[in-house]
Amino acid sequence: MKIYDWHTGPYPARVRIALAEKNLQPLVTFISVNLWKGEHKTPEFLAKNYSGTLPVLELEDGSFIAECTAITEYLDALDGLPTLTGRTPREKGMIHMMSKRAELELLDAISVYFHHGTPGLGPDVEIYQNPEWGFRQRDKAIRGMHYFNDVLEKQPFVAGDVFSMADITTIGGLIFAERVDVPVPQECGALRAWYARMQERPSVRNRVTMSKLTEEA
Amino acid sequence: MKIYDWHTGPYPARVRIALAEKNLQPLVTFISVNLWKGEHKTPEFLAKNYSGTLPVLELEDGSFIAECTAITEYLDALDGLPTLTGRTPREKGMIHMMSKRAELELLDAISVYFHHGTPGLGPDVEIYQNPEWGFRQRDKAIRGMHYFNDVLEKQPFVAGDVFSMADITTIGGLIFAERVDVPVPQECGALRAWYARMQERPSVRNRVTMSKLTEEA
Repeated sequence: MKIYDWHTGPYPARVRIALAEKNLQPLVTFISVNLWKGEHKTPEFLAKNYSGTLPVLELEDGSFIAECTAITEYLDALDGLPTLTGRTPREKGMIHMMSKRAELELLDAISVYFHHGTPGLGPDVEIYQNPEWGFRQRDKAIRGMHYFNDVLEKQPFVAGDVFSMADITTIGGLIFAERVDVPVPQECGALRAWYARMQERPSVRNRVTMSKLTEEA
Repeated sequence: MKIYDWHTGPYPARVRIALAEKNLQPLVTFISVNLWKGEHKTPEFLAKNYSGTLPVLELEDGSFIAECTAITEYLDALDGLPTLTGRTPREKGMIHMMSKRAELELLDAISVYFHHGTPGLGPDVEIYQNPEWGFRQRDKAIRGMHYFNDVLEKQPFVAGDVFSMADITTIGGLIFAERVDVPVPQECGALRAWYARMQERPSVRNRVTMSKLTEEA
């Protein structure tokens, strides 16, 4: 398998963490797509992923799977434990809900803020910006942090008692938030403590050093 | 199980179609949440779903599963054939990718247009609007229709050879697009033919009449 990614990207981090949790890194070659040069918006890359986002998984048969949730579903179905997307109907439902909520209310909101409320990837890549929308999304993400703090006051992981894809998505959100200087509010003690625990996982701590496996595109 | 929904809502339609495809309607009571009165933005409803969206599934144990993809995963894991979310790793990956793409590039884009580029649910509910962003999203959805047309020129269903959650999400997008007068372009013949075939499925054709099972909230 090949994964088109960028070693410090918050969305690519989601798949790097999933791969490491499942010990599937040996099956993968990473191919660098330089976001800062807009390589994800070229016609060649858009043919691989219409939405022009990273990461993208290329299978041995030459087909492409984009979208972190879809890639995680693929990887999780490939291999056994640990399960990232749930074993029972209730677990699957809860994990998918909380992962989608972590996108909507945190990661995607921060991403929109980055691309619209800051210089983003620079004027050559950011050909349209709507700063007002960007700032609204930043504020939404800060409210989202309070929501996830409430959740983590009651349970050890984002979707319940077990580490899952929902934690990975939330980690992606906080990685991106750090990058754009939107810190987790001091009063969100449970979210901060959970994030510190997450940093202790080798999959999270070592995700960028996986780039030793990276080839230039 | 209870489902909080609104009988003509495009997102609720996704879960109604999934239920009918799997013949699970007899297990469900629908509870009406009137979008036009903003009942999905009340504190009572936000306690069920932080994001304030429909539909929401309530399980027998009193827990709530929001987000159409999550609810569909739950329902699909509950019961056997037909499978809506895939059997093999590759099918799961493809279906999740195409369903997410149908959200990003069509359904969610049309929804943002409705809420920001039109009067939406009216001034009492739409307390913030960004029309410029709304119109951009409408244009994105029209490009998305051309993309899905290209896909459906090559294969009978959105994620390949089999009807799946990805078709349901795309149907949701076209239901919403019709509602806000964004027609499928004439030149998108494959998308139009696919949508006509989808209307022949009882799950799609009869989705609104399920409201005979509906209770007022």
